[in-house]
Amino acid sequence: MSALEKEILANLKHYPHYPRPDIIFHDVMPLLGNVKVRDKIVGAFCQRAEKYEVDAIVSPESRGFLFGTLVAQAMHLPFVPVRKPHKLPGEVWQESYQLEYGEDSLEIQQGASAYGKRFLFIDDLAATMGTTVACSKLVQKIGGEVLAAFFVIRLTEVPAAPLDFPLESLVELPR
Amino acid sequence: MSALEKEILANLKHYPHYPRPDIIFHDVMPLLGNVKVRDKIVGAFCQRAEKYEVDAIVSPESRGFLFGTLVAQAMHLPFVPVRKPHKLPGEVWQESYQLEYGEDSLEIQQGASAYGKRFLFIDDLAATMGTTVACSKLVQKIGGEVLAAFFVIRLTEVPAAPLDFPLESLVELPR
Repeated sequence: MSALEKEILANLKHYPHYPRPDIIFHDVMPLLGNVKVRDKIVGAFCQRAEKYEVDAIVSPESRGFLFGTLVAQAMHLPFVPVRKPHKLPGEVWQESYQLEYGEDSLEIQQGASAYGKRFLFIDDLAATMGTTVACSKLVQKIGGEVLAAFFVIRLTEVPAAPLDFPLESLVELPR
Repeated sequence: MSALEKEILANLKHYPHYPRPDIIFHDVMPLLGNVKVRDKIVGAFCQRAEKYEVDAIVSPESRGFLFGTLVAQAMHLPFVPVRKPHKLPGEVWQESYQLEYGEDSLEIQQGASAYGKRFLFIDDLAATMGTTVACSKLVQKIGGEVLAAFFVIRLTEVPAAPLDFPLESLVELPR
């Protein structure tokens, strides 16, 4: 285990049975409060991004915004938000995805096509990949592609939708 | 008008009658997509923050996260999120505030008291100040105080709750 993995794990807080009895909530907020760890996380993302030619960062609200903007700033790249319906004004593309019970939708502004074609997806936690797949389809709708998806945490025991691009995470947890 | 004001105004997009007939939606997302303007906004916030001794940045979800994290990173300060109910795990403080119709609530994690006492509040747009006042009360509940509130945009013609700390904005629009 790397020094960064150890530091991230030492700063994460875990809340069993929240928000449901069968879920462990891994709280990433302490990583935003710890400047040293936060800098190292952003630095690790930037380093891993070097092998891709990235035009822009794309992240879903709300926790994705926290890490996505930081990486965009560190890499001097545009940041493109993906949001829940009725949050982004103007012309948008919408993509629906399945939840465990029911479905949800996400939107991207059509004007985001101006920022390029090669997107790096950043989010806090990789689980079922529903959001990630929806975001990659939205990026396709603006004529781009997701080159890779970077996460702070990946939950290895959660059944996940397949991705047609690489997934990288800084730490792995069972669930 | 300063060069920065002109640049921000040139990059904002305005959507009249969205989401309601009597509202103009000022879209800040193009500011996140334009690296040069974004850097200047963050730089202007950092410069204005120099006259305060700030321990940490506090911002409400979701658009506040975008600018708050960037300023926290640039100033090497902890970032503390304020979120809608049932989003933050563990022990939280809650504060309710009036909306035009009905009321809403915001929460802060009690553990955020570890990050210090002097908070700089960052958000995208200053209008009625309902969220800002609620956030300052939440900061008080963790034993801290908001030294100042910084916004990208201030709407000058919207009736606003009084604040007991300075408000600074980078551009002003009537409504």
